[in-house]
Amino acid sequence: MGRDLSALFDPESVAVVGASDDPAKYGHAVAAQALRAPDRRPVHLVNRRGGTVLGRTTATSLAGIGEPVELVVISVPGPGFEAAVDDALACGARAIVGITAGFAETGPLGLARQQAIAERVRAAGAVLVGPNCLGIADNTTELYLASDRFAPGGIALLSQSGNLALELHLRCAPHGLGFSRFVSLGNQADVTLVDLIEDAARHDPTRAIAVYAEDFGDGRAFAEAAAAAGKPVVLLTAGRGTASARSAQSHTGALTTSADVVAAACRDAGVELVATPHEMTVVLAALNGGRRATGHRTAVCTDGGGHGAIAADAAESAGLAVPELGPAAQQRLRTLLWEQSAVGNPVDLAGMGEQNPHSYGDTVGALLALDEVDSVMLTGYFGGYSAATGGLGGPAAESGTAGGGSALAAGELETAHQMAVHAARTAKPLVVQSMFPDAPSCRTLVEAGIPVFASTEDAARALAAMTVDGAAGPPGVRPLPPSAAPLSDPGYHGVRTLLSAAGVPFPEAREITDEAELLAAADAFEGPYVLKALHLLHKSDAGGVALGLPDRSALVTAFREMHARLGAASYSVEAMADPTDGVELIVGVNRDPRFGPVAMVGLGGVLTEALHDVAFALAPVPAARAEQLLTGLRTAALLRGVRGRPAVDLAAAGAVIERLTTLAAAHPEITEIEVNPLLVRPDGALALDARAVLA
Amino acid sequence: MGRDLSALFDPESVAVVGASDDPAKYGHAVAAQALRAPDRRPVHLVNRRGGTVLGRTTATSLAGIGEPVELVVISVPGPGFEAAVDDALACGARAIVGITAGFAETGPLGLARQQAIAERVRAAGAVLVGPNCLGIADNTTELYLASDRFAPGGIALLSQSGNLALELHLRCAPHGLGFSRFVSLGNQADVTLVDLIEDAARHDPTRAIAVYAEDFGDGRAFAEAAAAAGKPVVLLTAGRGTASARSAQSHTGALTTSADVVAAACRDAGVELVATPHEMTVVLAALNGGRRATGHRTAVCTDGGGHGAIAADAAESAGLAVPELGPAAQQRLRTLLWEQSAVGNPVDLAGMGEQNPHSYGDTVGALLALDEVDSVMLTGYFGGYSAATGGLGGPAAESGTAGGGSALAAGELETAHQMAVHAARTAKPLVVQSMFPDAPSCRTLVEAGIPVFASTEDAARALAAMTVDGAAGPPGVRPLPPSAAPLSDPGYHGVRTLLSAAGVPFPEAREITDEAELLAAADAFEGPYVLKALHLLHKSDAGGVALGLPDRSALVTAFREMHARLGAASYSVEAMADPTDGVELIVGVNRDPRFGPVAMVGLGGVLTEALHDVAFALAPVPAARAEQLLTGLRTAALLRGVRGRPAVDLAAAGAVIERLTTLAAAHPEITEIEVNPLLVRPDGALALDARAVLA
Repeated sequence: MGRDLSALFDPESVAVVGASDDPAKYGHAVAAQALRAPDRRPVHLVNRRGGTVLGRTTATSLAGIGEPVELVVISVPGPGFEAAVDDALACGARAIVGITAGFAETGPLGLARQQAIAERVRAAGAVLVGPNCLGIADNTTELYLASDRFAPGGIALLSQSGNLALELHLRCAPHGLGFSRFVSLGNQADVTLVDLIEDAARHDPTRAIAVYAEDFGDGRAFAEAAAAAGKPVVLLTAGRGTASARSAQSHTGALTTSADVVAAACRDAGVELVATPHEMTVVLAALNGGRRATGHRTAVCTDGGGHGAIAADAAESAGLAVPELGPAAQQRLRTLLWEQSAVGNPVDLAGMGEQNPHSYGDTVGALLALDEVDSVMLTGYFGGYSAATGGLGGPAAESGTAGGGSALAAGELETAHQMAVHAARTAKPLVVQSMFPDAPSCRTLVEAGIPVFASTEDAARALAAMTVDGAAGPPGVRPLPPSAAPLSDPGYHGVRTLLSAAGVPFPEAREITDEAELLAAADAFEGPYVLKALHLLHKSDAGGVALGLPDRSALVTAFREMHARLGAASYSVEAMADPTDGVELIVGVNRDPRFGPVAMVGLGGVLTEALHDVAFALAPVPAARAEQLLTGLRTAALLRGVRGRPAVDLAAAGAVIERLTTLAAAHPEITEIEVNPLLVRPDGALALDARAVLA
Repeated sequence: MGRDLSALFDPESVAVVGASDDPAKYGHAVAAQALRAPDRRPVHLVNRRGGTVLGRTTATSLAGIGEPVELVVISVPGPGFEAAVDDALACGARAIVGITAGFAETGPLGLARQQAIAERVRAAGAVLVGPNCLGIADNTTELYLASDRFAPGGIALLSQSGNLALELHLRCAPHGLGFSRFVSLGNQADVTLVDLIEDAARHDPTRAIAVYAEDFGDGRAFAEAAAAAGKPVVLLTAGRGTASARSAQSHTGALTTSADVVAAACRDAGVELVATPHEMTVVLAALNGGRRATGHRTAVCTDGGGHGAIAADAAESAGLAVPELGPAAQQRLRTLLWEQSAVGNPVDLAGMGEQNPHSYGDTVGALLALDEVDSVMLTGYFGGYSAATGGLGGPAAESGTAGGGSALAAGELETAHQMAVHAARTAKPLVVQSMFPDAPSCRTLVEAGIPVFASTEDAARALAAMTVDGAAGPPGVRPLPPSAAPLSDPGYHGVRTLLSAAGVPFPEAREITDEAELLAAADAFEGPYVLKALHLLHKSDAGGVALGLPDRSALVTAFREMHARLGAASYSVEAMADPTDGVELIVGVNRDPRFGPVAMVGLGGVLTEALHDVAFALAPVPAARAEQLLTGLRTAALLRGVRGRPAVDLAAAGAVIERLTTLAAAHPEITEIEVNPLLVRPDGALALDARAVLA
């Protein structure tokens, strides 16, 4: 059930240690905010010099308050932090918010001090947010312990950056979005991002969880918590490029994770990954109303063709489809529209909106009702008629095109209400791009939970966020299997044996050290043979692999030549697999310090290096999901068979990937394991080489 | 020099035919706008029923005005348009703006009527904009002949959509951008997009040309005009997806062009191609100040690490580099900043901006002065201190973090001026992302020509638009060579002969029809041989190619087998090329109805189909440019040599591409020509097969 954070978010009483009348000190801002709800709970201000702060008498110490305090905020200079924590615990504090900086972000010594403090807090049965944080706020309990005010609403915002949280707050307001909670994560010495996600998942007023994090702590637990949250989790993070990784490390001492791994974890867990605060706002606005499309077919509607064409392109770029409507649907639209209207999709009212604004609502309603449409995007001028009367800079009154301006404005407002009624009859998303997003008719839509954006690409991004693939939802995060007995022999045949036992098919092979063993091996199975020198890092590049040796004599010749040249301690003699119509894959698992075992699959050989065409997922990877990863590769056409070649056996490949990734997940001592190549033919899959690296 | 459009943009006198007092009629809006500058030139209103319009006495016909009129706007119902044009020409009109719809966009009959009218206009030495347009405006000559007002400025806006033009107008205002001219393109029966670009290039007050077009008319001339304009051309167009192409065709009868071809033409011509009105505004704001970076190295600066990391990622995603600064540069920054600041890049003031706002300007100035930095992006809170005093919703005053709010605000404003001074000393771009883009300090920057954006991705996109590759500029558009004598034999050996004569190297080959000729051919050159059955559409797929025939006897056997099976009329016997260390390319030219000959190059074989990894450029393509296209392929690593293979001879490939594309450009009768494969080895290139399709 996760940790009990009730003392953090709804304490009986609060004390601010370091409260100050000096507006340049953070303790001033926190104290001022804390006092905004004095009737909700006692708020004590502590300043070691005493006197008054913000007109209130302060205590000179926590002990001086004379009664227990449930939550203590500490905003004192670094050297005083530890003593303040001890005082708080002595006063019975069950939650501490540590604003003071100077711990893990300064290096190993700071980290050690921070860990010791967190130990004491946990031993006392309390919780600690921070240190090095900017405070917390909970609008649902009138708890304000951070310098910024956050408008109330349904988003729990968990952030490693104060300025980014502030930007999100500013950006969300025009969309009618607000915050249930805000937590500045700081160094996560005790309470972690994962604890906070689990608590926000249980918190009814929270409808979506927005995270800015650079360091995921236990990334696997993050993914599991997000997957189990039962409400949207949107993640803003940095580290796609080298510069941002450098930056994150320098300013919080964070251990960053490769962007590929973060993206894979988000896909598995159903987390919406975004790259900027702007994109995060768009996605939050999209997900706010709870509407979801179960398919990718969107209908685009406009009055004036240019916007329809631009929006259709944007929708397709965002991964949606804008299919031509069927004859029955077109006929239905014809009954609503006039002759010059286009009804194919994009649907273009072609001026009818100006003659009769109700045609907007009628058309959107008809499109939402079509079985062949999963979502609707309205784009362009809508809003312009009411914007003019609303004094919002709409051009209609001035342009003269909108004769009878006020009638048009009233009609537009009516049809906006009608659209809201149509939208309420279905769970299908309706998203609006408007040149006049602040117009009264657009505000009507926003109030009805229909997101309105100024720009086309934002509307398309929103629609993509509202579209889920089928009914299955995200792939999910599998629990790690129990640890197996550690691999003792990380040599080639040790790895081979381990994988074989797990059901990964290999050709026949024998490890040999001399010519006598070589000949015995050749008797054990048929040629053609492969000879490999073992214990070389890059066998192929070093000339340590001989392929297609047709018989015993060729095998012996190859062995003598190779042994004279390389002098390896042992060799592997193998039955050569028939490569006809086969494709070589690379399949591996790397252990990420944050996210644990991460699977990687891709086309093998030259293409892997030249194209970086690989896919990642948290291990273990079920076979069906493995097949999805393969068919999602850019080079997937090679697997489906091109130029008359038959398709390869994806099910067999998927089964091998499941076995390999499950095995790797059960072996924490293995930091890397790889089958390369995995030969996949129309009739099965065969591992032709393997290697592992132990921790 | 292009057509003289002075009568269109600065006429001595204007008449509006179809002027109306009915605000539902477009002739009302145009008349009202036309009358905004009555002192500039005579404005006559014509209404066939007479009486007054907008309080002015109308003439019942153009002849009734009693004096010549230089420009006539015609906004009458369709059936009256032709007569109105004739009347205008009879009155000496030198320019006509045809608003009336019902011509090419309705089908072939409308097109024919429109062409006939345009002929008469041209015969009279006049020019016609439209028909089916929304009018024109020129702020530099106080000419207002469209329903919308456009704020004055340096952008010439040429648009096929009225609503998109309006959206651009609304979006540009916050960036301080306005318009020199607006032209609604309509059906381009006479005056075309190309004419208007050429005229805008000559028009001094126009500093940038913004185009929304679905149908490019003569696309090659568009590219040539844009390349020669000497000022930025930004193109918004639709048609990347199937739905938008369908839409464009349905609402203007436009012939759309493949997105690949449009993108190639824009790259060649140096046109900034954008996908949405929002992106267009960002690019226009970026290009407005004339600043350009000649390299991709950008320094990111913030106060508060999160924004720096996010902006660095956004910059790298936009194609820029955010390299770590060298030791000397870091030392220089250290003298300006405090200990906890990060100086690696991203540069993070780490709170110093709040202590001393001047550190913003000092840091930006120091970064702009570094040789190792081509551009600077400032991101995050900047603007927040002056936003608070400016009453713009800045949180500083409220949060209490900004103790001494007004001093901070004043400091921020001073440092903004200082930044403007630093920026004025260099041509390097400075771009700002601010949480408070409307703050006084941000407005100060905008007024100094430094673009400010609310969102990180916009700032990054802007910086990319301001960054040119080296000093060379765009590749340019080569003129078409004079037409050569048409290809008479489009058969395999005809095409081969044509290409060989142009310098494309082929292996030895003979066309043969029987066994005697086969043996004679085998005597002419050494094996191994290739035998191809000719006049089959897909030789390989039909089993019409036999490779690696070692000698005469193998050749004869293959011939007998193939001839018995296929019975082709003729065959080609060829010397087989040595494929060792070679890569197969596909090189071709297709003739686009709008853009003429367009070259396509890519990796050949299975990869072409599986990856669609091809590049396009307008033909002819010079060899150096051809090499750029090849090295820009996703699979370019295969050309550079992977896994110890040597690099292939790109210069030889480039030479073949130049010869093939120059030849194709000189043969308008060839709609498609292709060398596939072009075998490129470390020591040269050899065309192994070729085909052509005639119109």
